Amino acid sequence: MKAIAEFTIIPIGVGVSLSKYVAVCEQILEESGLTYELHANGTNLEGEWDAIIQAIKACHEKLHEMGVPRISTIVKIGTRTDREQTMAEKVASVRAESESKDSR
Amino acid sequence: MKAIAEFTIIPIGVGVSLSKYVAVCEQILEESGLTYELHANGTNLEGEWDAIIQAIKACHEKLHEMGVPRISTIVKIGTRTDREQTMAEKVASVRAESESKDSR
Amino acid sequence: MKAIAEFTIIPIGVGVSLSKYVAVCEQILEESGLTYELHANGTNLEGEWDAIIQAIKACHEKLHEMGVPRISTIVKIGTRTDREQTMAEKVASVRAESESKDSR
Amino acid sequence: MKAIAEFTIIPIGVGVSLSKYVAVCEQILEESGLTYELHANGTNLEGEWDAIIQAIKACHEKLHEMGVPRISTIVKIGTRTDREQTMAEKVASVRAESESKDSR
Repeated sequence: MKAIAEFTIIPIGVGVSLSKYVAVCEQILEESGLTYELHANGTNLEGEWDAIIQAIKACHEKLHEMGVPRISTIVKIGTRTDREQTMAEKVASVRAESESKDSR
Repeated sequence: MKAIAEFTIIPIGVGVSLSKYVAVCEQILEESGLTYELHANGTNLEGEWDAIIQAIKACHEKLHEMGVPRISTIVKIGTRTDREQTMAEKVASVRAESESKDSR
Repeated sequence: MKAIAEFTIIPIGVGVSLSKYVAVCEQILEESGLTYELHANGTNLEGEWDAIIQAIKACHEKLHEMGVPRISTIVKIGTRTDREQTMAEKVASVRAESESKDSR
Repeated sequence: MKAIAEFTIIPIGVGVSLSKYVAVCEQILEESGLTYELHANGTNLEGEWDAIIQAIKACHEKLHEMGVPRISTIVKIGTRTDREQTMAEKVASVRAESESKDSR
């Protein structure tokens, strides 16, 4: 089952700067082979449901190993059977709607 | 890895009433053996990471089988290594704080 | 505009135990007059959109005053025009579906 | 109070294609003067708390006017008092961490 997802991982109990931990997760994603893109409020992911979830779980495990005592993660995950759709196509659909409106 | 989670499943393209689909997911949770509780904005879950995720995936699969073309789900999932904690204990911790404040 | 909402407030940079801060927010909700219920992954709210958002903003302001340097909050907010619905009715709709299934 | 936020708006009861509605929200954001960026799982926003929330509320109102009977929105909103930070800086912090790791 293909999915498009986003996750935001919040390490708790390790102070106010979290970028070090997010960078470790990016490394895990890089090695996962999934399509991903970091943005200001999380990381978008595209691929098989199991591979996506496995990568997020690996982030939790790695961060706990690094000494993070508590982690809170928010995941958005979407699946559809009506058609295949990539992350790029989702954004392009909205852009196309905006342009058709602008040209009216 | 133990986790406390919440998921909100939003079937898209099947009209405005979603309770039928949420009820199907509740049935899946009932059969999963996980501790769960339905509330007004989602369902809370307690158990092993893999079992939680497996139950959510089974909901997506079942709803697609029922003809739902698109599903968007939001998951919150928390893990901690400093101590074990149940959902009931999370709520009780806040209650205890509130009461100690009231009695001051 | 009436809404049903949920928020999960995550104070960052103040250690691993967050219940003290959640309890302060509960106090703000209590004073707000909104219908609310604490659960294991957040707090559900029912009322006018503006009052809900105002309460969440007041939590951020109060926690920053208490010295929390960084706060990350997740809000789910739902509105509908087809009918009025309370939080209790949302849960009851699912229960009714489950029971009609059980009795088949 | 400055904030960095993300919202994902899910119109319910209007079929499976939602890009038309997201495009209408983009238009509202464009007129709001807020810094925003659309991505595959939502829209990131940067600005004053009140302006951000006002824009999201305006999206709900506009979509209901267009005939959407039910809307479910997920908002992430973060505030911090330790320092000012833009969306671009959040992403840059992670990139800097990644690069310092790569160069070891």
